[in-house]
Parts: sequence; C-alpha cells; structure tokens
Amino acid sequence: MPLLLDDARAPSLSALFAEVDAHGLPWRLETGSAGEPRIAGLAPLAHAGANELSFLSNHRYLDQLAQSGAGAVILPAAAAASLPDNVAFTRVICEQPYLLYARVAQWFAQARRAGRKPSIHASAVVAADAVIEDEVELGPFCVVESGAVIKRGSVIGAGTVIGARSIVGEDALLHPRVVIYSDVHLGARAVVHSGAVLGADGFGFAPDPTRGGWSKIPQFGGVRIGNDVEIGANTTIDRGALDDTVIADGVKLDNQIMVAHNVQIGPHTAIAACVGIAGSTHIGARCTIGGASMISGHLVLGDDVHISGGTPVTSSISKPGRYTGVYPYAEHGEWQRNAAVIQQLGSLRRRIRALEKD
Amino acid sequence: MPLLLDDARAPSLSALFAEVDAHGLPWRLETGSAGEPRIAGLAPLAHAGANELSFLSNHRYLDQLAQSGAGAVILPAAAAASLPDNVAFTRVICEQPYLLYARVAQWFAQARRAGRKPSIHASAVVAADAVIEDEVELGPFCVVESGAVIKRGSVIGAGTVIGARSIVGEDALLHPRVVIYSDVHLGARAVVHSGAVLGADGFGFAPDPTRGGWSKIPQFGGVRIGNDVEIGANTTIDRGALDDTVIADGVKLDNQIMVAHNVQIGPHTAIAACVGIAGSTHIGARCTIGGASMISGHLVLGDDVHISGGTPVTSSISKPGRYTGVYPYAEHGEWQRNAAVIQQLGSLRRRIRALEKD
Amino acid sequence: MPLLLDDARAPSLSALFAEVDAHGLPWRLETGSAGEPRIAGLAPLAHAGANELSFLSNHRYLDQLAQSGAGAVILPAAAAASLPDNVAFTRVICEQPYLLYARVAQWFAQARRAGRKPSIHASAVVAADAVIEDEVELGPFCVVESGAVIKRGSVIGAGTVIGARSIVGEDALLHPRVVIYSDVHLGARAVVHSGAVLGADGFGFAPDPTRGGWSKIPQFGGVRIGNDVEIGANTTIDRGALDDTVIADGVKLDNQIMVAHNVQIGPHTAIAACVGIAGSTHIGARCTIGGASMISGHLVLGDDVHISGGTPVTSSISKPGRYTGVYPYAEHGEWQRNAAVIQQLGSLRRRIRALEKD
Repeated sequence: MPLLLDDARAPSLSALFAEVDAHGLPWRLETGSAGEPRIAGLAPLAHAGANELSFLSNHRYLDQLAQSGAGAVILPAAAAASLPDNVAFTRVICEQPYLLYARVAQWFAQARRAGRKPSIHASAVVAADAVIEDEVELGPFCVVESGAVIKRGSVIGAGTVIGARSIVGEDALLHPRVVIYSDVHLGARAVVHSGAVLGADGFGFAPDPTRGGWSKIPQFGGVRIGNDVEIGANTTIDRGALDDTVIADGVKLDNQIMVAHNVQIGPHTAIAACVGIAGSTHIGARCTIGGASMISGHLVLGDDVHISGGTPVTSSISKPGRYTGVYPYAEHGEWQRNAAVIQQLGSLRRRIRALEKD
Repeated sequence: MPLLLDDARAPSLSALFAEVDAHGLPWRLETGSAGEPRIAGLAPLAHAGANELSFLSNHRYLDQLAQSGAGAVILPAAAAASLPDNVAFTRVICEQPYLLYARVAQWFAQARRAGRKPSIHASAVVAADAVIEDEVELGPFCVVESGAVIKRGSVIGAGTVIGARSIVGEDALLHPRVVIYSDVHLGARAVVHSGAVLGADGFGFAPDPTRGGWSKIPQFGGVRIGNDVEIGANTTIDRGALDDTVIADGVKLDNQIMVAHNVQIGPHTAIAACVGIAGSTHIGARCTIGGASMISGHLVLGDDVHISGGTPVTSSISKPGRYTGVYPYAEHGEWQRNAAVIQQLGSLRRRIRALEKD
Repeated sequence: MPLLLDDARAPSLSALFAEVDAHGLPWRLETGSAGEPRIAGLAPLAHAGANELSFLSNHRYLDQLAQSGAGAVILPAAAAASLPDNVAFTRVICEQPYLLYARVAQWFAQARRAGRKPSIHASAVVAADAVIEDEVELGPFCVVESGAVIKRGSVIGAGTVIGARSIVGEDALLHPRVVIYSDVHLGARAVVHSGAVLGADGFGFAPDPTRGGWSKIPQFGGVRIGNDVEIGANTTIDRGALDDTVIADGVKLDNQIMVAHNVQIGPHTAIAACVGIAGSTHIGARCTIGGASMISGHLVLGDDVHISGGTPVTSSISKPGRYTGVYPYAEHGEWQRNAAVIQQLGSLRRRIRALEKD
C-alpha cells in the first residue's frame, strides 16, 4: 500500500485527531516511548511503519499488536493495559476502535481529494437546458441530457451518462462510466461505482396470444434514491412500471446486485454482492442480506431481517431474525449419496410411518 | 410518476383508442358520468387522476376500482357490471385488460419519442466503410467499426461501440454504453439496455501440460440474434467458439444474464434476471426461466419448459412442465438442525432399512 | 462462420504448421487423396470445407469424422488408423488434438490482428505525466489518468479508462469500455473484456450507532494481477481495504464474476461465470470453480480444489478433491413433496431414534 500523504502533508497525530470527526467516540492519547509520530498513512498491525496508524478491532490480533511497528494504534483500554510499559507506539484509547479508524480513514480520503479543481471537461456534451451547479467536476466524454440537474459539489467520472430530467444530489461521487437513464433522482452524497445502470426498463411483458410471443409493457416509472446511498460496480436498479423504484436513505448496495422494478428498500439496509431482488418486493429498514441471496417478487420483508448468504427467500418474512437456506456442500461422492436420498424423502417418510404403525 | 404528455398533446379517450393497435383485442367504451376524458398519462388505480387511464388486471384490486379517481379504466365486462351506475370514470371493456393496457402504453411510449430528429453526433467515430442507413440516430462518443451496418430507423445511445462487420437491424434501440464486438448480427426492433456486452470471447481454454496452466482457444464464432429480442442491462452473450451463439426471434432477456458460447435459445423464450446458461446448452421455444436459475452446459431443454427461480438445472429436460429445485429456507436455528440431518441422510436410510428388517 | 483469412493470405498446411507453436506436441502429416490443402479457416467436423482445418477431440464425433469435408483434420493415431485408405482430407496426427488445435487457432487469431497499426486516437485524453510506451494502440474516447503506465504492445479498446498510477503490462488486450480505477497493476498479456471493472471500492462499512446506519471504510488497497490473466465481460474485482486484492499468474476468470476486497487467487486457477467470492478469502493454485458457485468470506481453499457449479462453499477446504452442493431439482410437484419433508428432517430423525429404542 502506498502511503496516503507525502511527508510534507502528513499531520502530527494530535493535529490529525483535532481534525477527525470523532463525534460520539471518546478517545485519549497515551504517547509511546518514540514520542508523537507524524501520520502519513494507515496500515494493518502486521506491517504498519513508524509513520502509519493502525487499529486493533479483534482480540485475534493481540499477538500482532505487541510487535507492531506502527507509529500509533487505536485500541480499547483493556488491550492497552495488557501492553508492556515501554511500548514504542502511541496508543489511541477508544472503545470502538474500528469506528474511530473509519473516521480517520475518511479524513485521509478527504485529504487525498483536496486540491482537485472542479471543472467541466471540454469534451462533455451538456444539453442547453441541463443545470450544472457550482463546484461540479464533470469528466471527459460525459453526456448530460435535457433537463438533468447535477447539484453543487458532485464529481462525475469519465464517460458517465445522465439521462433527461434526472437529478444528482449534492456532493455525489459517480465513478467513470455510470449510466443513469431519464427520471432518476439520486440523493446527496451518493457514491455510484463504474458500470452501474440506474433506471433501465423493468422486465415487463404480457403474453400476447394475438401476435404470438410477448408484448412489451413500457416502463414509465422512475427511480428515487435517498441520501447517503452507495451503489456498487455493475449493479442494476430498474425503473418502475408506473410507480417508482425506491431506495431509502443510507442503503448500501455492493457490486452486481439486481434490483427489479418497483422494489422498495428501507433505510440503512445493506446488501452484499450478487443478490437479486425480483419485482415489487419491499424490504424493510436495517436489514442485511448476504451475498448471492435471491429474493422472489411481490414479497414483504420487515425491518431487521437478516438473510444469510446464498439463501433463496421465496416467502414474506415479518419477524425480525436471521434466516438461512443453503444446501450443505460435501465431497462429491458424499453429496451424491445424500442427494439421492433427498429425491426419496417422501417415500422415506412413508416408510417411517409404516414402521410406527407396526 | 410524471404525466406522459402535456395537456396540449393529450388525446381524448376516443382519439387515443382510434390510434392504439388493439388488433385481436375487442373493446368498447362505456362513458362515465364525468363524460369523455382527455388522457395525458397512465397510472395505477390507487392514485390515477382524472386525466389518466388505469386498468384492472386482477380481482385483488376490485376494492381500489370503485374508489379510483382515474378518468378511464380498462376492465373486463364482469368487473364493470359490479360497479354502481353512477361511476364517474369511463369504462373500456375488454376481456384482456392487461394486454390492451400494454398496447396503450406502447402508443404513449411512441408518442413520447415522436419529434426526436435522427442525426449522427459530431463526436461519433464511424469507419469509412461502415454503413449508416437513413433515419439513424447515433449518440455522442459512439464508435462504429469497419464493415458494420446500422439499419434504417435505429437509435444508438451515447458511448456505444459497434464492432467490425456487425449488423444492427431496423428500428433497433440500443441504450447508452452497449458494447457489440465484431461479427454480431442483431435483428429488427431489438432493444438492448446499457452495459450489455454482446460477442465477448467464450470461456475456452485447454489444459496445457507443456506450458503449465491453460492455453486459450480463440473464439471465432459470432452471435446471431433474431427479431424483436430485448436484452437487459449488463447482460452478456458470448460469441461461439467456431459456430455462432444463437438467440431466436422474440426472446426476452432480463438484466445480468450470462449466455455462454454456442448456447441456442428458441423463439419467445423469456428469462428473468441473474440466470447463467453454460456453454453449448440448447433451450427450446416458449420456455420461461425464473431468476437466478443456473443451467449447466451441453444440455437440451425442450419447448415449453418452465424453470422456477433459483433452480440448478443439471440435466436435460425433454418433457414440458414446471421444474423446481431450491432448498427451503428457515429461521437460522431450524435450518441448522435440518442441514445437519441432510448430511446424515445416507445413514438415516440405512437405519430405516435395518428397522424394516427387524 | 466467416473464413478467417482471405484466399490470398491462406497458407498451405505445411506452411501453416511451420509457423504454429507446436512445442511439446509432436505431430506428423498424412496427406490425403486431395493433396495438400490451403487453410483459410477452422471449422467443426460437421461442416468444415476443403479449405478448412478441423479436429477430433472426442470419440463421440468419430461418425462425423469419416464424412467430414474438411481439408485437414487433427486427430490421434488410433482414430486415423480407423479411417478408410482413400480418405480425401489430410490427417495431422497428434495425441493431443485439442491442444494442437488451440495452438493453430492462436496462430490464426494473431494473423488476423496483423496489419493493425498501433496509434493513439486523437480523441483520447491522456494525462501529461502518464506513460504510453511504444506500439500501443489507444482507442477513441479512452482516458489515461495521471501517473498511469501502458506498456509496449498493448491494445486498449474504445472508451476504456485507466486510473491514476495504474499499470497495464506488455502486450495486454483491453476490449472496449473497461474501467480500471487507480493503483491497479495488470500483468503482461492480460486480456480484459468489455464492462469489467477493476479496483472499485470493496464493500466496507462499520455499523455506526452514533450517527445511525453505516460509516464507510475508505478502501486504500489496490489490485495486483499477474501475467497471462484473462478477465471476462462485466466481471468486477474490488480493491483491497488496506492490503491489495491479488490475482496470480495464469488465472482465468469468466464473465460476471465478483471478486471482493482482499481476495487472493492462486496461479492457474480457472473460475466459470457468475461466481461470487466474498472478502478476504484465499483460493489456491490450479483450482477450478464451476459457474454460479458462491464462496463465503475469510475462507482458505487449498490447491487443486475443484468446486462443482452452483455450490455454496461456506467453510474452508484443505484437501484436494471435488466438492458439490446443489439441491437436486425435480418436477415441481415432486419437489414440493421432498421440500416439505426437508423441513421435518429433525423430527424424522427423532422418530427413527424412537423406533430404534422400541
């Protein structure tokens, strides 16, 4: 990992923490024998150097802690107490080390972006009636269609397309080559990764016996996405048929997720990669959905439902809790024997009943 | 949902139906107490307004029907007969309301496109020997390579690439940022959504003991796609190894589908999102495949086969019907208990046999 | 399939094999009654013509062999011995016909590329301090950011973005519209298909009770990809959180694969389409992973592990071998009966125990 800032810009540990947003996360410093370090970057305990900050988020890494060459480490008081007196690195004592680390990392991410100058690349094609607010960065080969609005402070990567009447909220970050169709509203501080497609047609076709085959149902709804939403690479969110597809504030979507038309996802729900959510399903607030799960259409999942990875959810769930449904894998020969019995389960049950009647 | 046409362009209900293609779908009007409305858009029963058309496709929504503020509603005769005499909205009586609605929606979609002027954007890069027929719209930053042909009336979105010798049929609609490799033939009226990749190399490698690792099999086949095919966002269809990958007329593919090399898909088959179809598998006509299903390679699925969502199809299917194979999910604790037994099924069967011999 | 070379460029069979890299693959010619053919292309046995080369890789196709109209066929000695004396086509006797075919196909692929002139398209946007080495072809609308390096002989398709400080190795082939974020190193002879996204943020968020919802963990690691790696269309490989995500030499990844942050994949492992690999999992050398499998996070799979398609791998595997875990599908009614019993397996086991105690 390269250092995040060059030496000239690296702050002292105190200066760094004076600027980090540690609201709600009480912390204090215990300066080590090496004195107060300047912090140029972040690194794992195992290979952090004297100008890097690390953190202890899990007791498993206690062994690495004592030997770490880090300049400073964020850790809970109990772990700090277990260290020898003469430890070289400075301790940042905090009972939520991972969260405080997140805040420090956000500071570095911000510092690395500093100095970028907002500008509209000469090659971008912007409709005459589109609105680009102040301090927007619009990359090469972007297209902004009629009536679209890009709000103050947003960064739009190369080759991104913003469709007619769509809105990108303040301080959004769209990586290169995102496609936003028409009538998609994206909230403030959105992060959208490359290859994501927002607002493509929902999959709506009626069987058409008069013509043979299928008749397309044009999809006239839009997509409404709240504030502080992150959307992963190559994820697709389809527009609604008549009403909108709706993603609430704070939702986090990983890569290659498929959100079908008229789905609604509640606030702060997080969904891991490769999940498919079929049409018109509503998912509640604060849910987590493991990778490669599949949620059928027209279901309702309540708040605080947690789905294990790979689970096919084929019915609604009203009760909070954890739900699972993957077939246990095994060595191929053993799996073959078990799979064969699965196909005879009905008859096995009958045989047990017969034995019980004996 | 925005209204689809502004007031000045909104047709009267009669004028609208005079233009809609209702071939094969007999209908008649029963004008309501509010007289004949002008129709500016389409909306669900629950929140349609006086200048909007709605439809009743399912008895579940009968309650919403009586209270709908729609200007007009498409519905079957039986449902119309159940309404009070003084209902305000105009009834469009038709025994296939969803299909008639689809036709009306198609009229609106067409009306909204009217007035677009075909043109080739100045930034597009078109090979000297490519053919762009009349009335083609080619967006900014498109690339059309040597020998490619884009037929009359097609619309090609921004940033789309059409490879050498590929053909885009008449009146096709390619959304922004589609990639078509070389030697891909796309039929008339194709709709291709953003991020789709047609004609990438099939996954062909031979184990190579002389070099270690794998030796690439160059993929020289193409892709042939019939008429009236729709392809969803970020779907990939690989080119054949020597022969072509073939998608027949009227096939509908949702988002994030993977079609491997030398697959063949028969006419009017519809496939939901996130399905993977491995190499050389042939799928028949009029099949439906539920989302997130997985079809192994070198299989043959006959006509009129219907696969439930999430099903792993690991063998050929000759008999029409519905096939399913997902593990039932459950609360995590219950799943753990069932999953543990699954791994002992072979021994359970032996124990039943032993009991039966007693 | 079009012929691969026009007649003027088609070599005689001897001339062709003089140029093909057949290192480690002993072969000899038995000229047929039609004399030595000129070879303009490659085709399957069933429809190869007199100026095409075919191959026999499987005994299933022996019937097609005798009747093939090919000009020449690669086949093992035993199959050649079974042919009548007066067969027209020339036999290329080799005990690894598929691998020799691969080498011939590679020669044709190379021959078709010959004559392309490396150049940097006038529309490409290249940072002043990026390095484009000699003989690089950079397509229209490409963007190469600050500090990036594209090494000698690479071909970069239209609309591709190479992020800051990223490196593309020698003789790489990036198809159109690939996105490479910053700090991604791609080895020599890489092939990357359209829509692939390398280096997007890993999915890292900490629950944040002080603000509600999730706090983003900025992802500062990069991606390191070895030599001779192929990456399929719309595949995504995320950057690491602090350390890098690592793909070793000779790895082959099909389309729509998701590789999460900090995953490591060992040399010559091949992964079929639609596989998801969750964060921090390490996969060994020479593994094969079937399509649509799902590998959980923080696991270790050793060398020479082979996962059947559709298998959810939820625990580490140290022993080489084949592992499987898909629920067997069935006709829907039969599946319903079996699925119902699965949900009673715990009680069934208890009933068997009770019977055994009787």
